Amino acid sequence: MNQETIWDIAHLAHVEILTPKLEESTRFFTDILGMTITETTRDSVFLRAYDDYEHHSLQLTAHKHAGMGHYAWRARSEAALQRRVAAIEKTGLGIGWKQDNIGHGPAYRYFSPDGHTAEIYFDTVKYKSGAADTSALKNTISKFPARGINVRRIDHLNLLSKDVRAFRDFQVGNLGGIVTESIVDNLEDMNPKAAWFMVNSKSYDLAITEDHLGLGGRFHHLTFACNSREEILIAADIFLENGIFIETGPHKHAIQQTFFLYVYEPGGNRIEVANSTARLILDPDYATIYWTIEERKKGQAWGLATIPSFHTHGTPMPEEL
Amino acid sequence: MNQETIWDIAHLAHVEILTPKLEESTRFFTDILGMTITETTRDSVFLRAYDDYEHHSLQLTAHKHAGMGHYAWRARSEAALQRRVAAIEKTGLGIGWKQDNIGHGPAYRYFSPDGHTAEIYFDTVKYKSGAADTSALKNTISKFPARGINVRRIDHLNLLSKDVRAFRDFQVGNLGGIVTESIVDNLEDMNPKAAWFMVNSKSYDLAITEDHLGLGGRFHHLTFACNSREEILIAADIFLENGIFIETGPHKHAIQQTFFLYVYEPGGNRIEVANSTARLILDPDYATIYWTIEERKKGQAWGLATIPSFHTHGTPMPEEL
Amino acid sequence: MNQETIWDIAHLAHVEILTPKLEESTRFFTDILGMTITETTRDSVFLRAYDDYEHHSLQLTAHKHAGMGHYAWRARSEAALQRRVAAIEKTGLGIGWKQDNIGHGPAYRYFSPDGHTAEIYFDTVKYKSGAADTSALKNTISKFPARGINVRRIDHLNLLSKDVRAFRDFQVGNLGGIVTESIVDNLEDMNPKAAWFMVNSKSYDLAITEDHLGLGGRFHHLTFACNSREEILIAADIFLENGIFIETGPHKHAIQQTFFLYVYEPGGNRIEVANSTARLILDPDYATIYWTIEERKKGQAWGLATIPSFHTHGTPMPEEL
Amino acid sequence: MNQETIWDIAHLAHVEILTPKLEESTRFFTDILGMTITETTRDSVFLRAYDDYEHHSLQLTAHKHAGMGHYAWRARSEAALQRRVAAIEKTGLGIGWKQDNIGHGPAYRYFSPDGHTAEIYFDTVKYKSGAADTSALKNTISKFPARGINVRRIDHLNLLSKDVRAFRDFQVGNLGGIVTESIVDNLEDMNPKAAWFMVNSKSYDLAITEDHLGLGGRFHHLTFACNSREEILIAADIFLENGIFIETGPHKHAIQQTFFLYVYEPGGNRIEVANSTARLILDPDYATIYWTIEERKKGQAWGLATIPSFHTHGTPMPEEL
Repeated sequence: MNQETIWDIAHLAHVEILTPKLEESTRFFTDILGMTITETTRDSVFLRAYDDYEHHSLQLTAHKHAGMGHYAWRARSEAALQRRVAAIEKTGLGIGWKQDNIGHGPAYRYFSPDGHTAEIYFDTVKYKSGAADTSALKNTISKFPARGINVRRIDHLNLLSKDVRAFRDFQVGNLGGIVTESIVDNLEDMNPKAAWFMVNSKSYDLAITEDHLGLGGRFHHLTFACNSREEILIAADIFLENGIFIETGPHKHAIQQTFFLYVYEPGGNRIEVANSTARLILDPDYATIYWTIEERKKGQAWGLATIPSFHTHGTPMPEEL
Repeated sequence: MNQETIWDIAHLAHVEILTPKLEESTRFFTDILGMTITETTRDSVFLRAYDDYEHHSLQLTAHKHAGMGHYAWRARSEAALQRRVAAIEKTGLGIGWKQDNIGHGPAYRYFSPDGHTAEIYFDTVKYKSGAADTSALKNTISKFPARGINVRRIDHLNLLSKDVRAFRDFQVGNLGGIVTESIVDNLEDMNPKAAWFMVNSKSYDLAITEDHLGLGGRFHHLTFACNSREEILIAADIFLENGIFIETGPHKHAIQQTFFLYVYEPGGNRIEVANSTARLILDPDYATIYWTIEERKKGQAWGLATIPSFHTHGTPMPEEL
Repeated sequence: MNQETIWDIAHLAHVEILTPKLEESTRFFTDILGMTITETTRDSVFLRAYDDYEHHSLQLTAHKHAGMGHYAWRARSEAALQRRVAAIEKTGLGIGWKQDNIGHGPAYRYFSPDGHTAEIYFDTVKYKSGAADTSALKNTISKFPARGINVRRIDHLNLLSKDVRAFRDFQVGNLGGIVTESIVDNLEDMNPKAAWFMVNSKSYDLAITEDHLGLGGRFHHLTFACNSREEILIAADIFLENGIFIETGPHKHAIQQTFFLYVYEPGGNRIEVANSTARLILDPDYATIYWTIEERKKGQAWGLATIPSFHTHGTPMPEEL
Repeated sequence: MNQETIWDIAHLAHVEILTPKLEESTRFFTDILGMTITETTRDSVFLRAYDDYEHHSLQLTAHKHAGMGHYAWRARSEAALQRRVAAIEKTGLGIGWKQDNIGHGPAYRYFSPDGHTAEIYFDTVKYKSGAADTSALKNTISKFPARGINVRRIDHLNLLSKDVRAFRDFQVGNLGGIVTESIVDNLEDMNPKAAWFMVNSKSYDLAITEDHLGLGGRFHHLTFACNSREEILIAADIFLENGIFIETGPHKHAIQQTFFLYVYEPGGNRIEVANSTARLILDPDYATIYWTIEERKKGQAWGLATIPSFHTHGTPMPEEL
């Protein structure tokens, strides 16, 4: 059954985050996270981490409230892109091609079943370092910044969804990949409450969690990867020293085993820095791991209780809608 | 051109290592590396690391000299397997199907252009932990051993080859994936001296290096992954304390950035423990990075000179052939 | 004033822990913490960590309930010992010399103002490794065990006290050293609620905390040091995998900055494994840092709320008294 | 005999380094090491690491060649200072009191037996952080910089000496402390070739090595401590990315077990960044560990050969004298 899993998506490519405080949010990502700006337009700032290979992995856009503008997948090939677009079009959730994009070629835009805006593309603009930021090692996209937290690359996106089952089925059926882990109400009913999607060898590039408020299209968090857990611990000190609100962590997730640290950037969006140690899922017919609501009461791996705001804080916040 | 790269291989699955000291080699992998035995036959011992998901990632086989028996790829699906077999058969290097295997289903065996024995299969036996070794976390294949170096999973294989170009072209043409990095004599002639092959998101599962002695079918090293660089540093102490010969390291490779540590197991084979921090290659049309012989003279990333034995010690050793 | 601080104590030497489950407690310290047994008597097991230089740093003694038997200081010299004994004798809290001791020479026993039994000695039995456990490095007391958590040495002791002020004044006045940090009710009244005592360059070897239950002579926790924070994170997995109750952590203390992890050993006593990174206090006239109850409400360094049991769980538990 | 070891010195306080490139050297210590400038005079720049508690731990002074201007000890008390001065005066190596000092009170200056200029003082100027650099944690002297390598504090000084025996006997006899480790020609003759001096609980604050060139008063290296070995590995990347010459490392010293990384700052002086994990020497009558020349041929802890320049590169270089 699973033998012909669709492997047409290469990875989560970038996320557009909305912020009511563009300047402060930009400083957070440059000075604190150590990212760099690659382009600026009237409303947006485009940024990348030092080993992100594309023009940007993050677009910050000025907006009246926090939230997510859109997220983007890069396909594995032009043919793979066409196959995915054909599949999405049949669902009726397609929006259409957007030809003119900063940092990449034509992208096909669509709605998630929850109403989030997404896109998929193959043709891209790869980052070329210059005199000031070329790494001493040819296989690093640009020089290690030695500034702030030094995040290495975009890692994954977590979205709230008012219908986890619908999102999950749409994602696997049309974008492909595997649901590596899932929370269900119980093992009899198997009603999904959260799902983690793998499209390459990282155990997830996208996760969705049930929106307890029943709102649509909300953003939970965006994650950047560091090279080690030690750097996540150092990051905690850097956030502390710079007055950034730490929501929870560092600690190890039971689900996916990610060593996590969650903060709110100045615009109000939740940002995670994380390291997954050496964990990869290389098994091509990996069986989804199910966790029940009951099991989740144990908290995170080493017993940390899941913080209540984790279930309520999503952007935009309800009062902003 | 690169848009339809073949992505039919899931990962390097296991390696059979030959050893003239089966008992001592077994103790090395169990007591020092922290692996466990899953099955024993008259001539072989099958082992796995705590998060390897298959029956075994290592087969130790008693032999009059050190070296490699065979190595194995797992395909992404039954269909992917059939496609690869069809391609290999056309090359004339096919050996044929081996139906009766410990730890996995039917495997198609073939020779590398250098004469190494290889196999590819899809149907496998996944490891099922028992009362004594079930992990507290459902997403870990078995309990963290807390013994010796605690290697997590098989990482990659490095082979010597008397004709790197032939091996490289065979591998990419018939098994698929990407050559992520390569050493060439110079940028005019581009004669390959070494190549690193990626089949998933890890920057390599297989590497080949020119055999300076011109011998065929030799083994350079097999690598197991640890969770952090700190564990590699601890591993160095554990090797030191237990009288295991450390050839070189810990240090960071310029090529692939692997944080490496090389030792000789009691049978004489070179074993590496390594951590790649958060590095992955997610770019589906990644352009091969070329290093010239001249550039390689700089040594490893932080300047450590490549140890001379790295170019001469392969198993079997010439005097054993 | 502070110019002639008394520096007559070398370090916390060992602690005797009472346990109603001697066998299970012993297995915890040997198999999980990686310590080794150096001597066994009818009621006690003596253990040390791999880099503890004395005969033992821990004595486990069978008892009807959990708690602490006694704790011991090693003096800097015979003359320093005599000076301290003379001072203690004047306080009326002296018990007298105990000549016959396992692992060290004559010790002067005394009561803490809270009723804990303590001792001080200089003459000691240094551990001599044998064929099986001699380290490859001459400057390591014994071979790195590569088993469990591999704690390196005893680090510090934390006691509950019904009168923090009295304990503090007794300690500094008669044993010497510096109060490096202290919790006070507020900066006007300066009533001490907790105090941390430094006798060498480690920022504390002993801490005392107000016993909210007003009981006397209770034990809060004993701490062993690991080499890195990464090992504390690995320790958390090892505790998890082996069914050891994790009370709180890993996280960084605001006070003293210790990277902590607290568990209950099978006998019911709280044990900490910790790493202090590169922090030392080398300033000989270091001014005590005061934290108010109000400030402590912020939780630990990165915001983790102090777990309620931290204020109530001490051994023996009230129902056992 | 050893029972009344002199413990009058608190720690190595600061070192004055001479540099022919003051501006570039200053940028190295600020931008790369992450230190900050606390004062500037016509010829000198005074700097400290973020957790150094005094006005400065490093003074950079413009000079025609590289080398060391002087080094300074802080005494444990005013009385301890007077005792040490009295002892030094008797040796005939005293220079006299220097009343007017930046960053500390009156200092007694003296020559080492090798001709290095040294000083000892007690009265000091403790660093007071301001609005911009106050740490969120009261027990950190100033805010974690999140810039470059983020060294925490001065660690130790290594000097070349043309007569190791004379220097050693002068140091222990007049300054106090313990020789924790020493290299000798062989165990019969016991002629000292190098010695490491401990004055607190760190296993050394000063080391001396025989000057193979027989010159007098030369500087070998100055070391700053980082919080973890992971940060030393990151430091190696930062040096690499910024064109700083890495002489050797990261690796673990056999002697003292320091995890080391040596570079040359732009002025030509050797600088080390290091971490000693959790190692401390708390034993007040620690017996010196002797290593023979023969034993040292094994290289560093994990087998790295000692780099030849380690025995020849000292500042000033002979051609500059």
